[in-house]
This record gives sequence, structure tokens and C-alpha cells, in this order.
Amino acid sequence: MSEVYASADAARTASFTMAGLSQDEKNRALEAIAAAIFDRRTNIIEENSKDLFDAEVSGLSMPLRKRLLFDESKILASIEGIRSIISLADPVGRQLLATEMDEGLSLYRVSCPIGVIGIIFESRPDALVQIATLCLKAGNAVLLKGGSEASHTNRILADIISAASIEAGMPAGWISLLESRSQVEEMLTLDAYIDLIIPRGSNAFVQYIMQHSSIPVLGHADGVCHVYVHEKADPAMAVRLTVDSKTQYVAVCNAAETLLIDESIASDVLPLIARALEDRHVILHGCKKSQAIWPMKNVDDWHHEYLDYEMSVHIVADEDAAIAHINRYGSGHTDAIITSDKEAALLFMQAVDSGNVLWNCSTRFSDGFKYGFGAEVGISTSKIHARGPVGLEGLVTYKYKLFGSGQTVDEYASGKKHFTHRPIPLVNGK
Amino acid sequence: MSEVYASADAARTASFTMAGLSQDEKNRALEAIAAAIFDRRTNIIEENSKDLFDAEVSGLSMPLRKRLLFDESKILASIEGIRSIISLADPVGRQLLATEMDEGLSLYRVSCPIGVIGIIFESRPDALVQIATLCLKAGNAVLLKGGSEASHTNRILADIISAASIEAGMPAGWISLLESRSQVEEMLTLDAYIDLIIPRGSNAFVQYIMQHSSIPVLGHADGVCHVYVHEKADPAMAVRLTVDSKTQYVAVCNAAETLLIDESIASDVLPLIARALEDRHVILHGCKKSQAIWPMKNVDDWHHEYLDYEMSVHIVADEDAAIAHINRYGSGHTDAIITSDKEAALLFMQAVDSGNVLWNCSTRFSDGFKYGFGAEVGISTSKIHARGPVGLEGLVTYKYKLFGSGQTVDEYASGKKHFTHRPIPLVNGK
Repeated sequence: MSEVYASADAARTASFTMAGLSQDEKNRALEAIAAAIFDRRTNIIEENSKDLFDAEVSGLSMPLRKRLLFDESKILASIEGIRSIISLADPVGRQLLATEMDEGLSLYRVSCPIGVIGIIFESRPDALVQIATLCLKAGNAVLLKGGSEASHTNRILADIISAASIEAGMPAGWISLLESRSQVEEMLTLDAYIDLIIPRGSNAFVQYIMQHSSIPVLGHADGVCHVYVHEKADPAMAVRLTVDSKTQYVAVCNAAETLLIDESIASDVLPLIARALEDRHVILHGCKKSQAIWPMKNVDDWHHEYLDYEMSVHIVADEDAAIAHINRYGSGHTDAIITSDKEAALLFMQAVDSGNVLWNCSTRFSDGFKYGFGAEVGISTSKIHARGPVGLEGLVTYKYKLFGSGQTVDEYASGKKHFTHRPIPLVNGK
Repeated sequence: MSEVYASADAARTASFTMAGLSQDEKNRALEAIAAAIFDRRTNIIEENSKDLFDAEVSGLSMPLRKRLLFDESKILASIEGIRSIISLADPVGRQLLATEMDEGLSLYRVSCPIGVIGIIFESRPDALVQIATLCLKAGNAVLLKGGSEASHTNRILADIISAASIEAGMPAGWISLLESRSQVEEMLTLDAYIDLIIPRGSNAFVQYIMQHSSIPVLGHADGVCHVYVHEKADPAMAVRLTVDSKTQYVAVCNAAETLLIDESIASDVLPLIARALEDRHVILHGCKKSQAIWPMKNVDDWHHEYLDYEMSVHIVADEDAAIAHINRYGSGHTDAIITSDKEAALLFMQAVDSGNVLWNCSTRFSDGFKYGFGAEVGISTSKIHARGPVGLEGLVTYKYKLFGSGQTVDEYASGKKHFTHRPIPLVNGK
């Protein structure tokens, strides 16, 4: 039995125990983890410095080394993150549906943990802490694989989380760290043990995982987000929202990558937007019509995620063309329309097939924290299970509990008894 | 461009239009389909007789030929099925969450169609009608592939449904029929066009689809369901519920396949249950301890779905052993405990990792119609998206709609504005 298989088997066994833990038991374990990380912060920083040294020796780029850094302030931020998870309501045990099927035969749909979750992330060590504690809160066991650049930091964090939580009553084996790429390959095949894979990292990385896993994957490969300036847009708002969508933080998935403008207003509005973007050092890539209005490079690929100070510009005939362009070239992540015409906005929001459709605001709003979910497990561009920013509820599923008093189906099939299907008011509902 | 690719592309385009259809528009199309099937019933029966003739010539077994038969009474039942789908509430456009993020910035989570659904089913032609009309009700486009034994019947049914619904206003291309196995293979790879695959058929068939699709699959491969007779079970109830769970309809996924009995009561209770099962011609396969109490065959495999008058019997040390057995050998479908001990029942219902966990009633109850869902898309043993019996809500997803009035993220990041995250009462909520 391989190590990964043994870890997955242990995680599955632990998950059955975790499904029965109360909110208090889980929060006590989270408190213990937060305290242990604080107590051992000097050791963590020491291990992190080994990773930083190796990164420098191997010539890792400065931005990647920055992501790798796990210093006192990042440790304190992680601990604060755990405390905010403690304050969230327990997502498990909520009644989602209740029906009296007949006297003495009551059906409940109740939220419960998913089971075992496999998490694969690139360098950032704070991701390990965040996702492990979110999974614990939702009652799930986890297999974790972090980037090899952060191997020392990941190892000590996983050890601290495991020891502190088990000491506080969590079942042994609920958390395991995988350390090689071949172990990840093996994990992706263990669909009898692992219920969901959450990859966090670059586009290419997530796409690789999605294509090589027989287990459902929660995540998004890319965010090719659009700002569409409709002919009835207020020009000043169009400038302000395009600039914010593109430049407020360029390296993230909900930053806009493509600007669409209605042809009828393009010669007036595009220069205003282009100038404002260029003031922020954004390089533009446009279609022929855009280039005729404002000097810019030619666009290569409408499905391009720059994640940088660059933006594609396309002049469209009308709203239908804009919607068709987004549904063809977008990634189903986040798309915004700017218009003062409510009918046009409602059509856009219904016809654009994306997890987040926005009217007169920045694409940068599509985010679990900004939406008020209290936590963000990730953003999903899948339409199955969870879509858009995913909070704690993306880490639970449900089961049907049917409470009877001796009923057979034969009594109903023969017509002796009849179903009533009366709704029961929800207790602790969602 | 292959035919499948062209169909999938057309379905995806049609799906954007379908997302905007009102409940009335969809119901009118469903009425038109029902009327057209009724009007053309003679043609349908004629085409079906060709399939029946071919089936007889090729020596198809009698049960399979029975499933293939689509006579007047089955046609009328299908039409009645469409009318019951018309009477269901529209699953699209429901507010699932509403939050005022700030003044003039309101977030709604709203149900919407999934998009394009690929459906693969074996011989029964009534499955084609049911699943196509359920998909229409939920606003989804469909690619259908039926069993080749039913090719004439499927062809005419698909033609009637397509023509009648398009005449009634549905977009062209919303429904297509695939006719070869190689087309199915191709469909399973079109993850950019198809959002969900629903296979209906035998265990081996569904397992094949699940293993060969990069698209999410909704379904269950098998139903290895358990009845667990706890030491505090009422013996008469244990006999009645085991007999019903096993024999009320043996060929279905929620029929019980394995009986577990607590060791402390086995010598008293097993003979009662065994006699009652044998009176119904059930052949028993047991563990050594069971065989010591009642003569029966030796069991070969605890994960065996008989779908017949056969049952495995296992004597367990206690409830923990029963739960461990079910979580190891079951299929996560439906499992029942029989006991007068409420604590034992609640433990079982929480620790058994199945979509349906039942107390003191027959496993045969786990079914969308019996649960009162009004329609059943299928039963899912996946924990992702939909679990247990799946009604219309399994055919929809949701999107986030954010209504702003010019807000940038920069205003919030810089502290000029603050999120309020005030819940908004749901209109047309679920």
C-alpha cells in the first residue's frame, strides 16, 4: 500500500468521525491550531528562511520569492484568518428541506461534510493554513500538496496543524501532507477515497489538474473578464470603471482583460478610456476599428489573460455582438456592462453565461470577502456544485434523512396508504 | 467540423436564448410536444414495431424487448408525464441569496439553467421523452443518445419533439439526437460545449461513462443498499422491512442487497427474517456466523448488487461494525437501520456516508417521486452538485448578479467607502 493510498484511506476513516463533530469541538481545534502557530512562530520563520535561501540560490524571481515569504506579519494575518473562520456559523447540520411524507414518516435534507478533499497549491504557505482550517470548519479531512519551493514551511505548518488539532480532539489522519509530484498524480486517481480536488495556482497548473483528475475539481483555470461599454453608458463612469477593473490589482483573476465598446459611441468614448488607461501605463491591443480611433497594437487572441498592465479592445456592432463575444471568448468568470439602460443591463445579465454578471460596477467586486461570505474557498467557473466565489457552503454537501415508524413501500404501492408531502417548517434552516 | 461538434455548438448557442425564456414560453413548448406526440402516436407505434421486429430477429431477451415496447399506453403515460412537468414551478429565476453590499450596490444569487446537457440512455424510449422535457423545463439544451435497439423509435420521438417545440418558439438546435457510439465518445470530450452528462442504464454502462468523461457526470453506478437490524430492533418490524426492502421490486437500485444483524440478537432474529425471505424465494448468501444459524450459501463479495431475489447476510459485532461495513462495501446510495433506540438511529444516520440514511422504513422509499419532488432526473451517488434523488433543481445552477451605480473597488480598498452586507428579503425565494 503506497503512502498516498494509506493517507487517503486514513483520511476517509477520519472523515466519518469528523462528520459527527459539534461546532464547539471544531472551533476548539481551530483555537488550538491558532495558538500553536503563534507559539511556534519562531520555528516557522526559521523553516521559511530555509525555503527563501533555496529560492535565492536557485534564482527564483522576486515576485515568487515574495509569495514564499512567511514572516511574523503574515503569520499573524493567518492567525487572524483562523479566528474569523471560528466566528462563522457551522455549515454542517442545517436543514435544507423538510417534508412529512406521511404520518410518522418525515424526510429531511441536511447539510453534511463532503468527506475528503485534496488540495494542491503553489508556493504561498498562507494558503495551506487557510484552506486546511476552512476544511476543518466544514468537517472535511484533507490531503495537502504545496509547492516544492515551500517544502520546509509547508512541512512545519502541516505538522503544527496536525499535532495541535489531534491533541484538541480531531481524529488522527484527518490531515496529511504529500510531498512529491508523483504523489499528486496518484492522488488524482483515488476517486474512491477523495471526493473533491481544489487546485490553487496558475492557469496552466489548474488546467493540468482538471484534465488529469477523475475526481471533481473546484476552481477556475483563468479569468478572461470583460467590461462592456454600452451605447447608453455615462462616459465618465465608463472611464472610472474600466480603469478600476483593469488596474486596481492586475495580477488577479477578476481583473478585466478585454474592453468592448459599442461602435456608435466608440469614436467619442474610446479616446477617453484609452488615455486614462495609458496614464496608468496600460498597453492596449485592439481590433482594426479600435486602431483606427486610437493608436494601439494589434490583438493576437481574444481569449488572453494578461494578468498585467495590458488590455484587449474590441469595437462591437451592438449588445448582441458583445454578448456573443463574451460567451465565445470569455471564461465564464466575471463580466460587467456599463449602461444607463436598465433593459440592456438585464438582458446582458441574463444572456452572459458567467458566474458573475455586473452592472455599473467594477469587475474587481467578484470576490467572496467583498460579497460578504466571510471566507473564500476559491472561485469556481464550473457550473456544477458551486459557481462564482465559493464560501464555506462549497465545502459541504447534504444527505437525506428519513425517519419512519415501520412503513413499507408495499403499503403505498398497494394503495393502503397515501403520501401527504406536507412541508415541515425548517429548524436551523439556511 | 464533425456532426457532434456542430450539434454541441448549436446547442450551446441555443442555450443562451433558452436562459431567457419565461415559464409560459417553456410550458407552451411542452404543451406543443405533448400534443404532437399524441397526434402522431400511430407513426410512433409503427416505428417502434420496426425496433421490436429487429429485436426479435436479433434474439434480444424478453425483458429487454419489454423495455423497448412503446405502445399506446406507454405513450399516454409519457404525455401524462409531460403534463406533470408543466405543472411544476419554474426552477429558473429564483433568488437564492440577496445582500445589499452597500447603498446602491446589491448582490443577488439567482438560479439559472446549467446550459447544455448530454444524456445517454439505454433502450427505454420513454426515458427520451421524460429527460428531454425535464431539460426544456429547466431551460437546458440537450444532446441525446439512446440505445441502438430503439433507433427507429428514438429518431421519430426526437424529430417530433424538435419540430413541435421549435414551432412553439424554442430556438433551433436546442435538441439533437446522436446515433452512433463513436459520436458518444466524441461528446464525452466536448467539455467546452457540454456542461453535464446524465447517463441512465446499467451499472457497467454508467461506470464506463463516468470513467471516460472529462465532463461532470450526474448518476449512480450501483446501489448496494443495506438493511441493518440493530440489537434493539422490533423483530416483526425487522422482518417486514427487510422483506419489503429486498422484494418489493428487486430490479431497482434502492432494493436492499445486504442484511446486517447484530450478533447479540442474530440467533433469535435471523431465522425469522431468513424464513420470510425464503418464502419470497430469496436466495441467501452469508458469512460463516450466519451459516451457523441458518443454512445458506457462502457470500463471495460484500459489494455485490444482485438486482434479483438474492441477498447477502452478515452478522456484525455491534453498530460501529455495521457502520464500518456499510462505509466500506456500500455504494453511498441508501442504507436503513431498524431499531427502537433513537440514539443508535441518530448515530447511524450521521456516520453512514450515503445519500439516503433511513430509520425504521424500507430502502425502497428513496426515490424522487416518493420524496415528493414531482419529477426525478435521476439518483446521484456523487457528493458534488446533487446527491440522492435529484429533482428539477439538479438541472439548474446559479449566477451572481451585482447591480451597482458606478462603484469602484478602489473606493473600498482605500477606506473611503465601507461594505454593509445587509441581507435583503428574498423575492420568489426558494
